[in-house]
Order: sequence, then structure tokens, then C-alpha cells
Amino acid sequence: MSGNTFGNIFKVTSFGESHGEAMGVVIDGMPPNIEVDTNALQQELDRRRPGAFKFATSRNEPDKAIILSGVFQNKTLGTPIAVIIKNTNQKSEDYKEIKSNPRVGHADQTTLDKFGIKDHRGGGRASGRETVSRVIAGYFAGLIIPTIKVHALITQIGELRELNGIDKEVENYLFKLKTEGESAGGEVAVSIKNVPKGLGDPCFDKLKATLSHALLSIGSCMGISFGIGEEFKSKLGSEISTDRENFGGIEGGISNGEEICLKLIFKAPSTVGKNAKEGRHDPCILPRVVPVIESMIKITLCDHYLMQKTLLR
Amino acid sequence: MSGNTFGNIFKVTSFGESHGEAMGVVIDGMPPNIEVDTNALQQELDRRRPGAFKFATSRNEPDKAIILSGVFQNKTLGTPIAVIIKNTNQKSEDYKEIKSNPRVGHADQTTLDKFGIKDHRGGGRASGRETVSRVIAGYFAGLIIPTIKVHALITQIGELRELNGIDKEVENYLFKLKTEGESAGGEVAVSIKNVPKGLGDPCFDKLKATLSHALLSIGSCMGISFGIGEEFKSKLGSEISTDRENFGGIEGGISNGEEICLKLIFKAPSTVGKNAKEGRHDPCILPRVVPVIESMIKITLCDHYLMQKTLLR
Amino acid sequence: MSGNTFGNIFKVTSFGESHGEAMGVVIDGMPPNIEVDTNALQQELDRRRPGAFKFATSRNEPDKAIILSGVFQNKTLGTPIAVIIKNTNQKSEDYKEIKSNPRVGHADQTTLDKFGIKDHRGGGRASGRETVSRVIAGYFAGLIIPTIKVHALITQIGELRELNGIDKEVENYLFKLKTEGESAGGEVAVSIKNVPKGLGDPCFDKLKATLSHALLSIGSCMGISFGIGEEFKSKLGSEISTDRENFGGIEGGISNGEEICLKLIFKAPSTVGKNAKEGRHDPCILPRVVPVIESMIKITLCDHYLMQKTLLR
Amino acid sequence: MSGNTFGNIFKVTSFGESHGEAMGVVIDGMPPNIEVDTNALQQELDRRRPGAFKFATSRNEPDKAIILSGVFQNKTLGTPIAVIIKNTNQKSEDYKEIKSNPRVGHADQTTLDKFGIKDHRGGGRASGRETVSRVIAGYFAGLIIPTIKVHALITQIGELRELNGIDKEVENYLFKLKTEGESAGGEVAVSIKNVPKGLGDPCFDKLKATLSHALLSIGSCMGISFGIGEEFKSKLGSEISTDRENFGGIEGGISNGEEICLKLIFKAPSTVGKNAKEGRHDPCILPRVVPVIESMIKITLCDHYLMQKTLLR
Repeated sequence: MSGNTFGNIFKVTSFGESHGEAMGVVIDGMPPNIEVDTNALQQELDRRRPGAFKFATSRNEPDKAIILSGVFQNKTLGTPIAVIIKNTNQKSEDYKEIKSNPRVGHADQTTLDKFGIKDHRGGGRASGRETVSRVIAGYFAGLIIPTIKVHALITQIGELRELNGIDKEVENYLFKLKTEGESAGGEVAVSIKNVPKGLGDPCFDKLKATLSHALLSIGSCMGISFGIGEEFKSKLGSEISTDRENFGGIEGGISNGEEICLKLIFKAPSTVGKNAKEGRHDPCILPRVVPVIESMIKITLCDHYLMQKTLLR
Repeated sequence: MSGNTFGNIFKVTSFGESHGEAMGVVIDGMPPNIEVDTNALQQELDRRRPGAFKFATSRNEPDKAIILSGVFQNKTLGTPIAVIIKNTNQKSEDYKEIKSNPRVGHADQTTLDKFGIKDHRGGGRASGRETVSRVIAGYFAGLIIPTIKVHALITQIGELRELNGIDKEVENYLFKLKTEGESAGGEVAVSIKNVPKGLGDPCFDKLKATLSHALLSIGSCMGISFGIGEEFKSKLGSEISTDRENFGGIEGGISNGEEICLKLIFKAPSTVGKNAKEGRHDPCILPRVVPVIESMIKITLCDHYLMQKTLLR
Repeated sequence: MSGNTFGNIFKVTSFGESHGEAMGVVIDGMPPNIEVDTNALQQELDRRRPGAFKFATSRNEPDKAIILSGVFQNKTLGTPIAVIIKNTNQKSEDYKEIKSNPRVGHADQTTLDKFGIKDHRGGGRASGRETVSRVIAGYFAGLIIPTIKVHALITQIGELRELNGIDKEVENYLFKLKTEGESAGGEVAVSIKNVPKGLGDPCFDKLKATLSHALLSIGSCMGISFGIGEEFKSKLGSEISTDRENFGGIEGGISNGEEICLKLIFKAPSTVGKNAKEGRHDPCILPRVVPVIESMIKITLCDHYLMQKTLLR
Repeated sequence: MSGNTFGNIFKVTSFGESHGEAMGVVIDGMPPNIEVDTNALQQELDRRRPGAFKFATSRNEPDKAIILSGVFQNKTLGTPIAVIIKNTNQKSEDYKEIKSNPRVGHADQTTLDKFGIKDHRGGGRASGRETVSRVIAGYFAGLIIPTIKVHALITQIGELRELNGIDKEVENYLFKLKTEGESAGGEVAVSIKNVPKGLGDPCFDKLKATLSHALLSIGSCMGISFGIGEEFKSKLGSEISTDRENFGGIEGGISNGEEICLKLIFKAPSTVGKNAKEGRHDPCILPRVVPVIESMIKITLCDHYLMQKTLLR
């Protein structure tokens, strides 16, 4: 509940302020003798950076992962894996205005309320930059459950609905938002395939509960629903009980071996107006949040997967 | 992740199968010298039973709480509080059909997938009956944070929308569902007032993340959203950033001292048809789930509240 | 650290005051489909009661284990196992004197210091009676690691040294102590055979560290040493490095597959004088503590054993 | 139980192999707004290095602490504190012989047994070098409980008994051992003063239990005893129950406000013979282990201290 560790067996501990020395993560519980491909790790990190998507924040840091421990000759040792990413581009001038005007819907004021102190140079722990730790951990989690396929798809950004990822129309829309100092929320639909039967627990750690914990811990995520989601509210029992698919791959909190389907609601970033036009802020967090979503899901499933091994003979 | 304990400082451990000897809970981390009112505890338990609401399951067990430890002369001792409720009415004939026909959307099959064994007499751990443990723990959590007011309101049941709780119209609707062997889902809106500033953590244990974990661990809960919820998807930054209220009392994962607002999606119970008409099953889980929702929220806030004490001098 | 749960995967939660309704334990993380023999469980409990050893405390409670959950048709369900033992013989008159004269070396005063309240009718959580919970959990732990053999042997009681368990001479000595209102400490030597290689962790959870935690959590245990123990202080490296046996089966914190050897120091019970002569107190705790020692060791090894499964493919 | 995190509220996560990139630690649960003196931190680290004591290992690394997060303008932020120390002097030739001849009493073989893989360049996680992480964490723990005074004193090294720390005689003895390729064990006596009343828990987390866990997790520590230690074995109840001092400051597992006294047994380092003469190994670990002992005690007490705050109003 100090809140910087996630997981029970595959334990991910995140650290780092956005304008401190470095961001980083320690992964405890990683099984030994698993091959690590540092290029693949770097590619995962690059997915949450600008590049493929050109209107993202211009804070163009290399985000180069430095593995400090737990890997030797490209194999995991079974010891804690520590990885850091240095904060090389710590311009904090953009945050001057924030210091005196805490952003509504952001951690600026509540961090002070909680701790009575804050690194005023940036978002601190609440910065989107913290998510590099999650993407790194997600890479390692993925090595343990390589057959499980997690795919997050942007289905809405602001007024653009029923999207199927990012296309030219979306890029134009985001460009327009950026120039107007505006920002947008949206929706992401997630599909998880090849999940073994039996993951999740019947009581507090139902798979839908731990996935919700994992995904709502992403800064701008404001809601989650499973299976047919909102439709459950008006459907009658006879309408839903004929087809297992309605429940999105989880029954009684435990995976049933079918595709897990869930949807996430995201709010628009809180930085708008002049500050957004000039600062290094995204008009929409969704393009960069996709790998973070996938990582948090892998971390959660991996933890359940390792736990399930303790029940089997 | 064995999944039967919730909380880090205020630790709630739930046990019991619906057709075993007893349901129960152990609460570790309860501060000492707090007055306990066993009548008030019993009233909380009665709220999740039939009575006020007459079409609920006819499994009419007294649900009498027996305090085994942790309380002496009506005061908490600071030691673990254990409370049990005996299962006096363990008719299992109703479940015969279930044994051969696992209910879709229910734990019947997945429990077997996970454990390779199941108490076929009833829902086991996935039974709604398990929630008595949560209501008991919620009562004790409430003693620690008495000024926080948690209120869950049914706003939709099946086709009846914009409800303001249960009235005659709802009762008639539920009666009709019951006689037809039908069931319905719905929506619950939650308001939490007087939450101190500073609860929740900036990283994995954001208040919205732990509340989601707590609430999605309730059997039929299929979704959660905070603040303006679904509206976030299409709203622009400038539309939401002017009013703190849009975010529902949580900013950056930390309570800001204002009212916390969230909504929950519930699915219809999976038991329908002949089995529902004859069995002891509810046409809608919502009336009985209200105190469970409120309890899980109290447990979560209480844990954050005690954690916050460790940061203060 | 609320301190009533031990273990990470095989989680044992103990509850109950000596003069409350009942003592009990919840075991979470028990694998499913393991056969339970309630007679064998009862036999383990009987070992820590008077009987074989006649000068033990005269508080002659039946200590009958009542399984509330987690077992169905004599098989574990994989769900939490809750077991209680009722406190049928709650005479508290013996404790009147204690209320005004807190025993030196006992929790009487420090419990008040900590909690500001105490169930003055008896030892509360610090009572030796709490160890029934440990013996129950030890029984279930033993089912998971049936090939590991744990044997605790009393090697000293007061002035009687180099014992090989309890014989007629010991019984006479204890009888004499009892009549004199006197009490004695002693030593227990433990042998653990057939431990698989690889249990324990290289850092904070070295096997010697977690075993020490487990065993020093027994009320009167005042010291532990591994392998040749005290002799390590004066031996040179060349004298010990030739023979693996000196290290007592643990190297670098990890079991090496050989016999694990450790010794425990116990203090005399704090109740002496008139109070001891008349009260229901043992002149020596060792005869009854043997099954508690064995249980705590099984619990600890079981937890390491289940953890190790998460590392293997 | 992945075993690289210690503590429940003040959570210390250690990482790093002795011949990897860096050693490090993440401390979660550090309260905010506490002043950090990096010079004082460095001094603590220097205490476990050669210098004052000249016959220690010649692996002369600077051990410079680099704070990556959690501290801003010399104040703690309440966020996780990450500190690393680079491994600048990673000569691994000394370990060639070890690769083919695993040291008896060392983790060389058991690490392989456990993980099936090992960084053969050095001691890996079992290296004494890992203890830098503990000393760093101990420094921060000390900031939370500044009035508690922890003092560890070497009282025996090999045949030299009743020592009062290290003097000329000891230095000569160690020099002789070093030249002979020999090593020695010993004893350390610890005094802890000004501990508030009420730390520790009545059940599994008795103060003596958690201190034992903490201290037996130090590589060469083979035993611990509290108060009058070995003497408890032969003393009668009447002999010890008159004087609170016999129990070493802990009664019923809870601190009573008086001086806590304990003794630790250490074995001789396993590296002896030619390898020891030429390699960078200490003839005795005790001089360098003193700050590690003190650190582990501070970490443990700090965790209990923060926990105790959750019980108080």
C-alpha cells in the first residue's frame, strides 16, 4: 500500500520522479534461465515514445534501458532484475506555471495534500513518464507467458468513434487539437487471447478485480468494463446466459480459456490552453498508453500464472 | 494473491463455502480501544438479507454474527477480530442441476478448471453468501473512519432507468421477473463524502485503482467508472479541466477532499429459467449488493487511511 | 506486520485470545485435492496437551478441532481452510493476581503498553494456548511436504543436560519443580531430513532467517543456532570448511539437501511461586512446545517449497 | 518470499550481483520531508569498507552512493528512494577456482541447485557486497527513529574472547590469519537503547522474531540469542523472574522500553587456503559486518515503529 509495488509473486517495484536522476523498476520473482533480448525490450519502450506517432509530447528522451542486475549473458538469473532509464532532458521551465496553478484533474495539488512536499519541477511520480517502469516490467512478464497475446486497440478519440487504431484522419484530428492547445479523451478495447484456464481467484483477487486494479492505476484511465460492459445494465438473464462470450473470458473471477475482452475509458490530459500549445504535452494520451495497457495486463496475468503453479502438483 | 486477503494494514481474510460449516472473516490491523456495537453489526448484516426487499432469495438464514476474538467487553483489543456466521440452512438439492449443467457466466465450471475439485453442493467461494464476510469487515472498517459517509444508490435495474433506489414500481418489476424465472442487471451510483485529503498513492495504489479492485471483486460487478465516466471518452480537455467535480473527488490517484463519485455496472444473475423459478435465487442481485458495495469501499478507504498515518509525524 | 499472518504463499493467520470464545487459524494457499485425516490432525493437537506428560498445565481442555471451511469429503478444496478450537474452560480466577502484578518476562505489561487495553482474564494473544493455531497449520503444511521429516528433541531441562527426550528422571525433576512452585528452561535440538535442495532465498529470506523468524515467534524461545552453533565463534575457517555437515544443511541461505540441524534455547516460564503451585501452569514448557516447533518448521518449509515451484518450468 | 524485500511498511528491496553493473536498493514507505545528509550516508557506507580496518578485503571500490529518486533538495519526498552503487572493480579472475570448486559453507553450489544458473564471476546475490543495500536502507531507517541508539560490539574473534571491539591485539591476530590464508568466526553483542515501549507484535512478529529474521539474513550469522541467552537453558524460573534485565528489553515479543540486548554468532568465511591468501577476501567478516548488523536492526525497528502508528489515535 506504499503503492509502488504491484504483484504478489511477480513483484514489480517502480521508482523515479520525472525530473530526478532516473526512472526505474525492480522485478522480483522472475524465474531463472529465460532468454532476454535487449533489442526487443528497447522496442517496447520505443512504442510509448514519439515516432510512429508524430504529435506526441516533444520531450524527446532516448529512454534507453540500462539493466543493472538479474540478467547475465542474456539470461535471467532468478535474482531481482533492476532496470533504469536516465532522465537526460530535464527541462523544467515548462512547469513554472504549474507550480502556481495546479492543474485540475491532475496530481499537482493532491501530491502536496498527501506528502506536504513535491518536486515542483514536473509531475513527479504522477508523471506519465513513470510508465516506462511498467513497460519494462511488462516485457519481462511477457517472457514468462509468451503464448498469451495481449492487444489494445484505440476505438475512440474525442469525437472520432468506432476507430480501428490510428489512421490519417486521427493524425489530422490530433494535429488540430495540438495547435488549438486542446486535448481529448477516448476509449481503448483490449483483447487477450490464449489465456490458460484457471487464472484468477474466486474471492478478492478475481481476474477482473486485479486487472481493474492494474489498469485503473494508469493515470488517465477513468473506467473499465468487461465483456459486453454497459449493455449488462439493461440485459436480462435469459439474454446473456446463453452465450459464454458475453462475459469476456472470465467467469466467477477465473479465466475460462476464451478470449478476454475489456474496454477502458480515458480522460483528456489536464494540460490545455497556452501551456499545452507551448509545453511538451500530448493532445491525447492514448497512442502512447497502448503499450502501458498491454504491459500492465501482462504483469497481472503473469502473477496469476505463477501463483497457479503453486496449486498444481 | 491466494486471493482471500484484502488490504495491507487493515487486512481482511475471508473464508467459508456456502454449504460448509460456516462463513467467516478475520480482520487483522484493527486498532484497539474502539467501541463495538453488536446490534449495529447485525443490522448491517440484515441489510444484505431478504426483508425490506421481499423478492430476494428465499434462503432465509439468520446470518447471526458470532464474534470469536478481538473484542472484549465491547471494545476492540487490537488483536485479530474473527467473526463467523454458521450455515444453518444448507439445502443443496437446488444445486443438483447445476452439478451437471454449469451456469454460463458463473464460477461453476471455472472453479473446477482451477482447482480440479469443487464442493458441488453450492456456489462454494463464488457464492454471494461469501459477501457476509465483507459486510462484517465493512462494519469494523467504518468504526475507524466514522466521519466518512458512503452511500450506494440503485439507479438502474434492467429496463428501469434513472431510478432513485427501490420503490413500488421496482418491486413489481422484480416480482414479475421472479415469476418468469428471469433476472436483470443494473447500475449502482456511489457517493462518498467527507473523505480526508491525501488518501491513495501516486503509483499502483491510486485510490481509483484500489477501489476498482475492491468493487470488481464483487461477483456480478462488470464495470466501474469514476466522475463523469463514459462522458470522458468524447469530452475535450477544455471542457473538463475547468471543474474539479468532473473527476469525482480523486486527482492523480489521491483524494482531494471532495465527494468521490463512481458508478458500477452489474450483470443479471446467471440462474434463469426453471431453476430460478424454483430455486432460492434472486431475480436481481442489486438490492442485496448495496451493503456489500459500501463495505468494500469502507475497507479500502480504511486501509488507505491507516497507511496515511505512517507518513505523518 | 500486524503480525498475525505468517508465510507468503502458504499463509497462516492465527486468531483468538486464551479466554475468548475460541482460538483459530485460517490457512490460505493450501493446494486442492489433498487428503485430510481429521484423526491425525487431532493427534497432533493432543501432543501439545497434557497426557503423555502428566505435570503439564491442568487446564484440561479437549482442544477439539472444528474445520469450518476448505475441506469437503476429506479433501482440500484449494479454498481457505478455517479451523477453530473452542475455549471451553475459561476459568480466569487464576489470573486475578496477574492483573495487579504483571509477570516479569511475560507480555502482561507490554501488551498494555502496546494496545492500552488487555483482556485481563488471561494471557490473551501471548498465551501458550495460541499455539494450537500453529499446530493445526503445521498439520496441513505437512500434507504438502510429506517426505520431509522434522524431529524436535529435548536435550536439556534446567540442570538436566544431554537429555535424549523425556524419561523417568525428567518426569521426577518436573514433578519436584511443580511442587516447589518452580519452573525451568532448557534446550531443544531439531533435525530436519529429506529437505529438497534449493529451498530458501539468497537475500532476506535465507532459510536460516525465515526459520529463525518462525521459531523465535514461539513465546519462550530465546535463541537459535544452526549447525555447530556456538562452536562457530572460536573455530577457524580451515577447521569448518572441510565438512559440509558443520553448516547444518543450509549454505548461502539455501538448503543443500542434507540434514538441517538447529538448536533452540528456551527460558523458564515466568509464573513461579504460590501462583505457579496453585495455578494451571507448567513447570517447563518444553514437553508441550515440541509439536509447536515442528509445526512452525513445517509451515516455513512448505512456504519455501511452494515458492520454489514458481521458479521452475 | 522472493526474498529481496524486507519490511511491511518500511519496505526495503535489494538488488544487484557482486559482478554486475551495480548494487542497489529501493526503499518504499519513507515518510516525506525528512532531511537527508548525503555525507552521513557515505560515512555509513565507508564503515563497511576497508580503511579503519586495514586487513579487510582489498577489493577497494569507492562504494559511492548515487541517489536516483525520492530525495529532492536534500529532503525526502515520500516517494520511493532508489540508491545505487556501481561495481567499478569487477575483477573476476579470483573466482575462477571457485567456479570449479564450490566453497563449502557458501552459496556457490546451492545457488546452482536453486536457480540452475549462476553468475560465475563472483558471489552473486550471496556476496557480502549485497550488504551495501542494507547499510543504505539502514541510514534512511535511522532518520525515522533518530533517538534509538543501536550499538554492535565485537566480543570474540576466533580464540580472542571477551573483546571490547578491535584493538592492536586483534589487528595482529587478523594479520596473522590473513598471511596464513586462514579465517575466523566470532561473536557480536548488540545493545539497543531508547526503544519506545510497545514495538513488536504478540504473535508471529514478536520483536525477537523479526530481529532474528533480519539478522540471520546476514550471510555468516549462524545464531542469535536474547537477554542472558545460553544461560536461560539452566536457570530456574525463580532465578530469572526477579529481574526484568534478564529478558533483554523484550517481554512477550514487545519492547518494554528498556535496553534490548542480543548476541550473534558468526562463522569464519569459507574462503581459506591459497585462494584466501591471494584473493580479495577477509580473514574475518566481523569488522565489516558491524554496520550491517546495526542497519538491519534499524530497518526492523523502523518498520515496527511505523506500524505502531497505525494503532494509535
